[in-house]
Amino acid sequence: MQIAKRMDNVQRSYIREILKVTARPDIISFAGGLPHPDSFPVQGVAEAAAAVLAESGSEALQYSTTEGYLPLREWISARYARQGIEVSPDEILITTGSQQALDLVAKTTIDRGAPVVIERPGYLGAIQCFSFYGAQFRTVDLTPLGVDVEALRREAKGARLFYAVPSFQNPSGITYDEPTRREVAAIMAETGCMLVEDNPYGELRFMGTPVAPIRKWAESPSVLLGSFSKVVSPGLRIGWACAPAELMRHMVTAKQASDLHTPMFTQRLLHRFLVDNDVDEHIASIRKRYGAQRQCMMDAIRKHFPECVTVTEPEGGMFLWCGLPEGVTSEHLFHKAIERKVAFVPGCPFYVDGTDTGFRLNFSNASQDDIVEGIARLGACLTEELAR
Amino acid sequence: MQIAKRMDNVQRSYIREILKVTARPDIISFAGGLPHPDSFPVQGVAEAAAAVLAESGSEALQYSTTEGYLPLREWISARYARQGIEVSPDEILITTGSQQALDLVAKTTIDRGAPVVIERPGYLGAIQCFSFYGAQFRTVDLTPLGVDVEALRREAKGARLFYAVPSFQNPSGITYDEPTRREVAAIMAETGCMLVEDNPYGELRFMGTPVAPIRKWAESPSVLLGSFSKVVSPGLRIGWACAPAELMRHMVTAKQASDLHTPMFTQRLLHRFLVDNDVDEHIASIRKRYGAQRQCMMDAIRKHFPECVTVTEPEGGMFLWCGLPEGVTSEHLFHKAIERKVAFVPGCPFYVDGTDTGFRLNFSNASQDDIVEGIARLGACLTEELAR
Repeated sequence: MQIAKRMDNVQRSYIREILKVTARPDIISFAGGLPHPDSFPVQGVAEAAAAVLAESGSEALQYSTTEGYLPLREWISARYARQGIEVSPDEILITTGSQQALDLVAKTTIDRGAPVVIERPGYLGAIQCFSFYGAQFRTVDLTPLGVDVEALRREAKGARLFYAVPSFQNPSGITYDEPTRREVAAIMAETGCMLVEDNPYGELRFMGTPVAPIRKWAESPSVLLGSFSKVVSPGLRIGWACAPAELMRHMVTAKQASDLHTPMFTQRLLHRFLVDNDVDEHIASIRKRYGAQRQCMMDAIRKHFPECVTVTEPEGGMFLWCGLPEGVTSEHLFHKAIERKVAFVPGCPFYVDGTDTGFRLNFSNASQDDIVEGIARLGACLTEELAR
Repeated sequence: MQIAKRMDNVQRSYIREILKVTARPDIISFAGGLPHPDSFPVQGVAEAAAAVLAESGSEALQYSTTEGYLPLREWISARYARQGIEVSPDEILITTGSQQALDLVAKTTIDRGAPVVIERPGYLGAIQCFSFYGAQFRTVDLTPLGVDVEALRREAKGARLFYAVPSFQNPSGITYDEPTRREVAAIMAETGCMLVEDNPYGELRFMGTPVAPIRKWAESPSVLLGSFSKVVSPGLRIGWACAPAELMRHMVTAKQASDLHTPMFTQRLLHRFLVDNDVDEHIASIRKRYGAQRQCMMDAIRKHFPECVTVTEPEGGMFLWCGLPEGVTSEHLFHKAIERKVAFVPGCPFYVDGTDTGFRLNFSNASQDDIVEGIARLGACLTEELAR
């Protein structure tokens, strides 16, 4: 059996491997990127499923168009309009989670060896996905206000695309402020590098001032990705890509070859859920929950972590980032933490150069009791490691 | 904006473009590959959806493992065992339709320029999918008993894989007999070429003697693909790949990067449907329906088509193939047929060399009244074209 050479570039997802270790019920895990299960609108989904099957069962169970269910694309378009962003339903492709949107962008735009700019640290699912197509990574550091724009201006020249998660970034929790967003838009137009803006957490702001996607200020063609995974359910696997017409045409072709179309049943069910329920109220309850859990984690960190460990202060989303003092590696810390039955994701997979000076904590999935206990255990590990 | 060079190799799916023309309600279409909507077990799916959400809503709506829902993989494994085929659940990857299984096989095994053997005519979704990865196609003709084994022996040497649909092939409707299957298995072992056996229609035999997948006689590592699209519902988008451990490991990594996992809700719902219902009885009713529709189409063809048009006689599945006499092209015929409000898929997209000497008819989707009327119209077109 011969395996394609492209597999040499790709690591099996580190996080998914880690999740197997951390799924043990006796471990308090801050490792995964899971929404809190109590946030899933099970009853609303059940009602929507029953209604769709009763009213249009044959259509819901039949093959359908690659572009996706039009009323769902119209709903997304209307929601963007509320943020002052114009995206027509024709510019929206429904995908099997926003991970597939990322894969389709990569499949249609990245040639082997093409320079691709990513944030440092960056979303490991994007690193993995781009690696399949032979991307040559260039990285730009993050500051507390977003990407380092001077570095971006340098690295974007001649690059195929810049992949960014400007709101509540994964893994850092950092959010680009408005001046940084405007500057990024300008740099993209100036350099001809295409922005691929991933915004799965944008609706999950629990403090601070809302800011629109960079797309709002874009002066050149760009791609904007979205997802229902964090605001309704990841198990439905529904995301989307907004792309300019020329790229959309290619992405539709790529999606045809990838999986024909996203399940029609889940698309119709989701649309029905969105129109039959108060989505804003539902999202507000998720924000409230995650805001409280984030506060609980920050308080516990201040209490238990040594002062030399730096911590980001996210205003939304699901993650925060801890920076380690020199001499401590997060991978070593990870093994110590597992012994104490607490888990996180070490920094390494978020870097393309093997850097390992921090780690990611998720605050959306665990209960407040587990957050308090888990952070105390982690604090004890850190204290021990720093004493060595 | 820069588009990846691989897009130069790929045609937008011809069929999906054609389906847009043929979706007009006044056209009798034999073009698509759609199951009959009356065959969808809407009530059973509704009951399964309600049960899954009531009993395990949080799990059904959460992220899950890339490999797929274990009880569903166990169900598939047990069903293979009934055919004398041993596939452990660990060798099964649940995919977003079997089209994705095909894409993952291609992504993990095909390097640019790698020789890939396909049937002639062949499944256009495979041609499109392999084109993305730069496959160099080699073709082997089909005979009424299956692939031409002498040609296969020649072309398989040095090829990366042989993609085949041995039962009720798409587009021809041809089924490999048992001696041909055994011979194919031997040729694969002899040449080191990997068999990728696609079997979406295998359960849909309405006449003749059942024959197991080639996998049963395989002497070397091979891949077997399956789908619930034709026996339960295509709108759920659930298929699978059986692959040897080494390849499976890479395919799981590729699936992580492609869409993380197939929706957990639809996987659990499908499994619940399968265990709560008499699936064999359900499939028997589909077989009976398609058998009757196929007979209706064959009878109408004998009545209305000129004798020089050849026709395959499928014992199952959803398609038959008509061969045209020299001088008549199916693309020209297609336009004439559309004028008379009847549609089919011209031969061209099933060939990598532009051959256009036949066309595909689907008999699963139209009513018997429409089949009688549509074939009469098509017969009139053919008679007119041959008279020119």
